[in-house]
Amino acid sequence: MAKRFQGVPKLSDYAIKEEQLPPLKDGEFLCKAEYLSVDPYQRAYAGRMADGTPMIGSQVAEIIESKDKDFPVGKRVVGNFGWRTHTISKSGDSSEPYLMPDMAGLPNSASIGLLGMPGMTAYFGLLECCQPKAGETVVVNGAAGAVGSVVGQIAKIMGCRVIGYAGEDSKIEWLKNECGFDHVFNYKKCDLDKTLKEAAPNGVDCFFDNVGGMFAVTVYQHLNHFARICQCGVISSYNNTKPAMVPETLGIFVFKEVTLKGFYVSRTFKQWPEAIKEMGQWIKEGKLKFKETVVEGFDNMPQALNDLLDGKNTGKMIVKASVSKL
Amino acid sequence: MAKRFQGVPKLSDYAIKEEQLPPLKDGEFLCKAEYLSVDPYQRAYAGRMADGTPMIGSQVAEIIESKDKDFPVGKRVVGNFGWRTHTISKSGDSSEPYLMPDMAGLPNSASIGLLGMPGMTAYFGLLECCQPKAGETVVVNGAAGAVGSVVGQIAKIMGCRVIGYAGEDSKIEWLKNECGFDHVFNYKKCDLDKTLKEAAPNGVDCFFDNVGGMFAVTVYQHLNHFARICQCGVISSYNNTKPAMVPETLGIFVFKEVTLKGFYVSRTFKQWPEAIKEMGQWIKEGKLKFKETVVEGFDNMPQALNDLLDGKNTGKMIVKASVSKL
Repeated sequence: MAKRFQGVPKLSDYAIKEEQLPPLKDGEFLCKAEYLSVDPYQRAYAGRMADGTPMIGSQVAEIIESKDKDFPVGKRVVGNFGWRTHTISKSGDSSEPYLMPDMAGLPNSASIGLLGMPGMTAYFGLLECCQPKAGETVVVNGAAGAVGSVVGQIAKIMGCRVIGYAGEDSKIEWLKNECGFDHVFNYKKCDLDKTLKEAAPNGVDCFFDNVGGMFAVTVYQHLNHFARICQCGVISSYNNTKPAMVPETLGIFVFKEVTLKGFYVSRTFKQWPEAIKEMGQWIKEGKLKFKETVVEGFDNMPQALNDLLDGKNTGKMIVKASVSKL
Repeated sequence: MAKRFQGVPKLSDYAIKEEQLPPLKDGEFLCKAEYLSVDPYQRAYAGRMADGTPMIGSQVAEIIESKDKDFPVGKRVVGNFGWRTHTISKSGDSSEPYLMPDMAGLPNSASIGLLGMPGMTAYFGLLECCQPKAGETVVVNGAAGAVGSVVGQIAKIMGCRVIGYAGEDSKIEWLKNECGFDHVFNYKKCDLDKTLKEAAPNGVDCFFDNVGGMFAVTVYQHLNHFARICQCGVISSYNNTKPAMVPETLGIFVFKEVTLKGFYVSRTFKQWPEAIKEMGQWIKEGKLKFKETVVEGFDNMPQALNDLLDGKNTGKMIVKASVSKL
């Protein structure tokens, strides 16, 4: 990020920087990006970064040189390497690299999608923050995204009624027909309050919020006593240059004894292997559907991020680092 | 409440209604109010009640007739009897009556203050929702009230640094000199943001919020990672005729992984005896100071509630049901 974004990131705010990597030290390995992740949080984080800071993000990469026998050449590694084509890393460093796990028959790209950070966000965010119980009603927005689509499917596995919101009719078809959501609405075309009255006549027990803003305020009016909110993202605000003004709703939180938990998945990192195993089992049993929107070429990451913030993806938005010069 | 309040309750919105009580049935007892509680939540609740609904609230009352040997004549009973001078009640009914516990040397009125609902709100709200740890920084507003003053003192007992906000210099002196708060500010005279920078240079870990509105929004800017908020009340909003507009702050909740819990003390009712015992011990050890603002006369409850919402009390606001006709 050459220049800190103001509002919607401009392509001219970015610069590609080439650097000469030093020779490997003992314990290090060099890897080459295969797929890079584009996620809403990257925009949010960038708002707090100084000009010239590399964009953050996870990727799955091929190890092409190694001085660590646990990370041998030819294997795939997943790590928070940022928007880089080549990275020198080592076990236990801040990018938290780990060997790509068993992919349960899915492509490598799913290691940064359904079986990676977004999948883990859905898994731990829903199960830890919302603690859904069978028979409860779960609302999720950004429902066709990499996180939302998995949240809804796990909630179904838990025996909940699931209401999702997305912004395109094709996404809605996918969520209804393949992912098993009970109700899905196009938030651009519906009266949110009315759809909740219809689809959640007994109120909302769990709200997995990726959006914030007036969407959230409207859902709050339908929360049941002891409702739980996982505040996973606030995508409605990331391109704002000043905070949106919303009606205060703390009174609802008191009288309904609502719990809201801000959630950021990195805190659960040590529990990922177990969760990936459980999710892999669900995939094999056909309980978790997988979709991704793949963009070709590292150079297209800035545009891919803008498209993501615009909701142009269905499922995980991913960039294949396939330009010839890499 | 004869007529539902619009904004600040008017005395003409109330009516005193006399009714003939039926003879006692087996298991019932008749009690006569000694002290009645005036609390901010009563205003909030009234906003949802129909015209003609009796005002809710707790009181300590003398049993003057009884057909239950566990509630004998002459004993004091604490219950959610509402704004009534005389009440027929029975063990286990919805008013949840219980015999006044050992008062640790305090007057009977403290059974609906420090050792009653407000004290329990402070105890469980702070300990369960905020989970303060020694060395952490706790912020409480409405700090000179029946709840806030106890929150700060329990936080001190837990080894925390305590920053309080109140609206009168005499309250501030009391909190600093007697209750042991580390910092106390007059929110009407200070720049809240500046005082937090000064008094909480390392950020805020626990926020016990009785106020909401822009006060809360400002404190959010100073929260530490994994901060916990007990949303106990929203006194800034109770007399609003429409919701206040505030900047959206959900982004802070995500990136700081903040937990906010709406809290209403009745859920902890079964744990009160143990907590009253522990608080009684702290009182005997001189660790918990007690103050109340006593208003004479049942007829003055409406004015007492308005005065409470105006912050005219220090410590617990209480009405002595002492007019001769009672």
